[in-house]
Amino acid sequence: MSDHLFSKRTRRVPKSFIRDILKVAGKPDVISFAGGLPHPGLFPVREIKDAFMTLMEERGSESMQYGPSEGFSPLREWVCDRYRKRAGLDISPDNVLITTGSQQALDLVGKVFLDEDDFVAMERPGYLGAIQAFSFYSDAIIQVPLKGDGPDMEILEETLREKQPKIFYAIPNFQNPSGQSYNLEKRKHLADLCATYGTIMVEDDPYGELRFAGADLPPVTSFMKSPSILLGTLSKIAAPGLRVGWIVGEEAMLDRLIIAKQAADLHTSTITQQLAWQYLATNNIEDHIETIRLAYGRQRDCMITMIRRYFPPEVSFTQPEGGMFLWVTLPDGWSSAELFELAINEKVAFVPGAPFYVDGGGLNTMRLNFSNADEADIEEGIMRLGRCIEKYVGGGRPTE
Amino acid sequence: MSDHLFSKRTRRVPKSFIRDILKVAGKPDVISFAGGLPHPGLFPVREIKDAFMTLMEERGSESMQYGPSEGFSPLREWVCDRYRKRAGLDISPDNVLITTGSQQALDLVGKVFLDEDDFVAMERPGYLGAIQAFSFYSDAIIQVPLKGDGPDMEILEETLREKQPKIFYAIPNFQNPSGQSYNLEKRKHLADLCATYGTIMVEDDPYGELRFAGADLPPVTSFMKSPSILLGTLSKIAAPGLRVGWIVGEEAMLDRLIIAKQAADLHTSTITQQLAWQYLATNNIEDHIETIRLAYGRQRDCMITMIRRYFPPEVSFTQPEGGMFLWVTLPDGWSSAELFELAINEKVAFVPGAPFYVDGGGLNTMRLNFSNADEADIEEGIMRLGRCIEKYVGGGRPTE
Repeated sequence: MSDHLFSKRTRRVPKSFIRDILKVAGKPDVISFAGGLPHPGLFPVREIKDAFMTLMEERGSESMQYGPSEGFSPLREWVCDRYRKRAGLDISPDNVLITTGSQQALDLVGKVFLDEDDFVAMERPGYLGAIQAFSFYSDAIIQVPLKGDGPDMEILEETLREKQPKIFYAIPNFQNPSGQSYNLEKRKHLADLCATYGTIMVEDDPYGELRFAGADLPPVTSFMKSPSILLGTLSKIAAPGLRVGWIVGEEAMLDRLIIAKQAADLHTSTITQQLAWQYLATNNIEDHIETIRLAYGRQRDCMITMIRRYFPPEVSFTQPEGGMFLWVTLPDGWSSAELFELAINEKVAFVPGAPFYVDGGGLNTMRLNFSNADEADIEEGIMRLGRCIEKYVGGGRPTE
Repeated sequence: MSDHLFSKRTRRVPKSFIRDILKVAGKPDVISFAGGLPHPGLFPVREIKDAFMTLMEERGSESMQYGPSEGFSPLREWVCDRYRKRAGLDISPDNVLITTGSQQALDLVGKVFLDEDDFVAMERPGYLGAIQAFSFYSDAIIQVPLKGDGPDMEILEETLREKQPKIFYAIPNFQNPSGQSYNLEKRKHLADLCATYGTIMVEDDPYGELRFAGADLPPVTSFMKSPSILLGTLSKIAAPGLRVGWIVGEEAMLDRLIIAKQAADLHTSTITQQLAWQYLATNNIEDHIETIRLAYGRQRDCMITMIRRYFPPEVSFTQPEGGMFLWVTLPDGWSSAELFELAINEKVAFVPGAPFYVDGGGLNTMRLNFSNADEADIEEGIMRLGRCIEKYVGGGRPTE
C-alpha cells in the first residue's frame, strides 16, 4: 500500500527501534536489562483482588459504565491530597485530569500545545516515549545536555532565549534514561527561566517516590511562577497494567486538555480507575512503596557492585539515588549497538543509547534497567556483559 | 492564560456542547434520553467478578504488567474468530489492534491518515465522537446526507470525485445519531466507489450485534477491494467501562497504527484486556447479547408507541431495527434547542441535533436514546416531551 496514504506526521515518526530490541530481549532465556518494567513480584496481587471484590459489591454496574472524561472524582481527590501532603502543592481536584497512563498525558500535551513548527525542548538524553509522542506534533525537538545534577543551565537558557520552545519537558527525579536528578538550585533556576522566556514547564515524575538514597527535593512545579504541567502515574508505585496516570495543571489548560482527552478515548477505564482508588483507599500505599524502595535499592547496589567487578575502568556509569535505570557511557568511539549484538549472543540484553538522542549522538551509551531482575540475574547478567565488553575490546575495536 | 499558547488544532475544536447537556441531563430527577449509555442493569457484574477471580488466580501479576502495544494476543484471536464466524472475514490476529475503546480508534485513524488539508467525508448527521476526533487532525470535514437506507449515493459519488477525501467514515448499522442502516445494495456500491476514487473506507460497527428486527447484513468491509478499516468494541455487548475496542485492517496500515498507539498510551490496560478475554472465554456471549437485544427491542417499541401517542403527526421519527437511538425531525423552522429548554424544565432531556452537523444544519432535529431508560421512564418521559411540544407550539412558534 502506497506511503502517500499516510499523514505527513506519520511518515516523519520512525518505526520504534526499541520494539524490536524488546522482542529479542523478551525471549525466556535472555537476562534482560532492556525494558523499563517494574518488578512483577512486587505487584499487590492479593490486595488488588480484594479491592475488586469490594468494588463489585459496592459499585457493581457503576464501574462498568461510561464515566466523565476528567476522571473518577474520588481518584482525582486522592491525587491532589497526595500532592498537598508530599509537596505542599495548593491544588484542587479541578486541577487534575486522569489519563490512560502518563504516556497519554504526553500525547495530550503534544496535541493541545504543539504546532508542527513549534520547538520542543527536552533533556539529552531524553525519554523515548516523550520523543515519540511529541514527534507526532512537532518537527523540531531540541535537546539540552544533562550534566549529572540537571541540565547544562547555560545551554538551557540559550535554547529558551534563541528558540523560544513552547514547552520544556523534563524528568527531574531519577531521569529515564540517565538515572540523574536535578539539584535544588537547578530546580529553582529552571522555574525562573521558564517564566522569563514564556516556556511551559512539563514536569514528568513517574519515579519520584522510588528514592532509596538522599533526601527528597521539591518538584520544579512548586517553584513555578508561570504556566506549568505536572505528570504522575500509578505505574511504578502500584501497577502499570492499570494504565492510570494524571495531569496536574491550571484550569484554563485542563479545560482544553479534557476536550482532547474526550476525543482521544472518552475517558480512562472506569474499572481500573475505581479499582485503583479502592486499592488506595483500603491499603497503606506508603508501606508498599517502602517495600519497592528497599528492593530496588538492593538491586541497584548489586548492579553497581557487579559493574565495578566486571566492567573495565574506562566504562563510566551513573549511580542513581532512585528510580529504575542506570546509564553507562562507553569510551568515545565504542558502539553500544555493536556491543548489543555480542550481548544478545551471550543471552543478556540492554537498550543502546542512540534512540534517546534526536541528533544521532549517544552511540557509545546504553541504559541498564535494574528494577525487573532479581539479584542473582543481575550478578549473572552483568558478568556476561563484562565478558562481552572484553570480547568487544579484544576484537580490535577502538579504545580511545 | 493567553490563547496563543494552545496549538492551532486546539483553538479550532469547539468546547463540547454535549458535555454541558449531559451535565444537566445527569441530575437524578431528570429522565434522560440524552446520553448514549447502555443499560447498566444489563452489565454482567457477577460474571465479570468471577472472571476477575480466575484471572488473578491464573495470571496474577502478568495482568498488572506492561503489555504489547498491539494488544493481548488471545483477545486479538477472539476478535478475528468472531469476524470469521459472523461475517466470513478472512483475517488473522495480525490484522487486529486493540484500542482503548473505539473512540481511540478514531483518534489513531485521524493521526495516522489525516493532514490538516485532507478532506474527511462522513454521514450527515454524523457521529459526534468522530467529528471531534477528526477535527483535531483535519480542517475539512464534509457530510453526505443520509436518506433512510444509507447515504445519498449521487452526492456521495460527487463528493468522492470532486473532493477526493482521504477517508469516508460511516456507521452502516443503526447509525448514531440517526438509527438508520444501509441496505445491501448501498453497501456494495459504497465499496466500489471507495475503490474507484481511492478513498479509505472506515467502517464503525459498535451496534451491529444489537439487531432486534430484520436480518443481519454483511459489513461493507466484506465487499471492499481497496484499503479499508473496520472498528469494533465491547462497549455495547459487554461494558463500556472496560474501554476495550479494536481496529481491523491490513498489516501495512496496522504497522503505522501500532506506532501511533504506542505513542498514544503504550497499550490498553492489561487488566481490562485480560479481564474481557477471561469473561468472553468462560461465558456464552451470544446468550448475553440476546438478553440485551430483547430488552432494547422492548424499549424501542415502547418509545415508538409513546411517540405515536403523545407527539403531533407533523413530527417524524426513524424506526431503527437495532442499536440505541431514534432520530426525531421537527417541522422546518422549529428549534430543538428551544424545545430542550422547555424539556429540561419538565425534567426530561434529549440531545438537540445541531452538533451532529458540521454546517450549521439540523436545527430542527433531535436524538433520543432508548437503551438507558426503563419502560416506565420512557412512558413518563415521552409524555412530558409531548407536553413540551404542545407548549412550544402554543407559544406561537412557527409551525410550517
